[in-house]
Amino acid sequence: MDTTRATLESVAARAGVSRQTVSNVLNSPHLVRPETTDRVRAAIDALGYRPSSAARQLRTGRSRVVGLRLEPVHDGINGAVLDRFLHALTESAQARGYRVMLFTAPDDEREIAQYRELLDTADLDAFVLTSTHRHDTRAAWLAEHDVPFVTFGRPWEQADDHPWVDVDGAAGTRAAVEHLRRLGHERIAYLGWPDGSDVGEDRAAGWASAMVEAGHDGALLRRLHARVPDGVAAGAQAVERVLADAAPTAVVCASDSLALGALTVARTRGSALAVVGFDDTPVAAAVGLTSVAQPLTEAAHRALDLLLDQLDGTGGARSREVLLAPHLVERASSRTP
Amino acid sequence: MDTTRATLESVAARAGVSRQTVSNVLNSPHLVRPETTDRVRAAIDALGYRPSSAARQLRTGRSRVVGLRLEPVHDGINGAVLDRFLHALTESAQARGYRVMLFTAPDDEREIAQYRELLDTADLDAFVLTSTHRHDTRAAWLAEHDVPFVTFGRPWEQADDHPWVDVDGAAGTRAAVEHLRRLGHERIAYLGWPDGSDVGEDRAAGWASAMVEAGHDGALLRRLHARVPDGVAAGAQAVERVLADAAPTAVVCASDSLALGALTVARTRGSALAVVGFDDTPVAAAVGLTSVAQPLTEAAHRALDLLLDQLDGTGGARSREVLLAPHLVERASSRTP
Repeated sequence: MDTTRATLESVAARAGVSRQTVSNVLNSPHLVRPETTDRVRAAIDALGYRPSSAARQLRTGRSRVVGLRLEPVHDGINGAVLDRFLHALTESAQARGYRVMLFTAPDDEREIAQYRELLDTADLDAFVLTSTHRHDTRAAWLAEHDVPFVTFGRPWEQADDHPWVDVDGAAGTRAAVEHLRRLGHERIAYLGWPDGSDVGEDRAAGWASAMVEAGHDGALLRRLHARVPDGVAAGAQAVERVLADAAPTAVVCASDSLALGALTVARTRGSALAVVGFDDTPVAAAVGLTSVAQPLTEAAHRALDLLLDQLDGTGGARSREVLLAPHLVERASSRTP
Repeated sequence: MDTTRATLESVAARAGVSRQTVSNVLNSPHLVRPETTDRVRAAIDALGYRPSSAARQLRTGRSRVVGLRLEPVHDGINGAVLDRFLHALTESAQARGYRVMLFTAPDDEREIAQYRELLDTADLDAFVLTSTHRHDTRAAWLAEHDVPFVTFGRPWEQADDHPWVDVDGAAGTRAAVEHLRRLGHERIAYLGWPDGSDVGEDRAAGWASAMVEAGHDGALLRRLHARVPDGVAAGAQAVERVLADAAPTAVVCASDSLALGALTVARTRGSALAVVGFDDTPVAAAVGLTSVAQPLTEAAHRALDLLLDQLDGTGGARSREVLLAPHLVERASSRTP
């Protein structure tokens, strides 16, 4: 392909459009009608024109690239949630003329070092942060350096004030309890994570408040609540203990991993224990596990809205804090036997 | 941050290093010792220096960005394989000073349209292609336009001659048969996909050749071989049919989805049927399914080797065709009962 002679002007002349239209096809393709885009592309091909993104970037000061940290694969079952968010974010960004660039970092400090390197060497426009947590130093660094960003995950401390999108975990476990109560269950246990996870406490709180409203007292709730590290084996062990100690007829879990452990115990025993998981992972669909589903496509779309508001100065009075409601996907594991 | 006054020279002077060292920290960080990098970064911070990647790119003609299509999420169980490849590719690229940029496309034609747009607007250096298939038009387009690329997946037609990395599927199913035969199984069935998938035919061939070597004739093999669309329910139905028709004591499957269906049938019946899956997905680990594991970290690393050979003109006599051996992860589903 000969890339030296063609210019923006010669492409415009051949396609019978203005220079601005050729520029739009290259820089803001979503603004141009498909037929026009096709004609301009044909001219670009015929002439072998190859614009430089570097030249464009010097001109516009915008790379139209958003950075996202790819989290390490811990538990393949629950990790699928962030991979699905990544898919949705990539599609939503592309439809709006943006791209997603990935990086990895093992902790906040090295994630910030990556921000720095990416801003230095790749001129990213913005970042999407996931897995917000207490003592999270990332948001403050980005704010201080005037870098647009949004978090998927709410800030867990008052001090943090930035745009975010999150899913209402408490509403999800509350919906699970209400579903089970409609099926006649009263002694509904909860398998959750150890202290120290804000996401975990949020999910536990939804179960606890629904149980209190149903008239159960704190002493019973404490016996029905197991705190265990996430994982299938941990879920199996925990449900054995809770079954022996508090005789629940149903269990709501903080994750599909814990729920899969509980379900395996129930099925092995031929027990009628109803089980509800969280995150509606592929495993849940595969084994017939009722689970709380996060609206990941909407979360990605709304996160991009909040980013583009900052990049384009649009948005105005739109709220910068978006809490989305999850919904329950009902399957065989919670049906009355 | 004041970004207007600092220059490469002032950063170099403050850090007590050469301009080239500052440039290396920014453009080839893997070449610089960590202590030196820290010193240069401190000077960059103190002076508020912010180099422009666009300016650098105009100078070097290299973006150090590699494009990868994110595949649509079809079956969450098997899709996890490409997500794990993506994680490994991102880490391996980052360690070598490259970044991964994502895009999506529903078919080859629109994937090629994305190559064009990415080359026009983001100056990517190279692409990594996944899911190679017959009548694949992508490789020819990239070769014709002199764009460096590598495929994860071998070319399935003679005409294609380009660097690739793949995993030997036939070796995987052969290892599964040999494992089952060591455990005393002889009538070993195979649940595979319908005609038309080269990956599927490769995996089926490994099972078939190992069975022929074990002395089984073609007539029996035909009865032991079920061809079904991928999925948990399809696997369950197919194994019911094969059990009724050919009475196998073990079954090797083309995917963990099919294997999970077979395993569910076996466990529900209290049957001693041994089951082996393919891809060692998180579901396999969760339910105790023996499965063939692809070496995805090595695949990503070798794919990058082949890309960097093209970008840097290194590699020399290194083979451009890399076929990696999978290995069997043994779990409860194939143990003698």
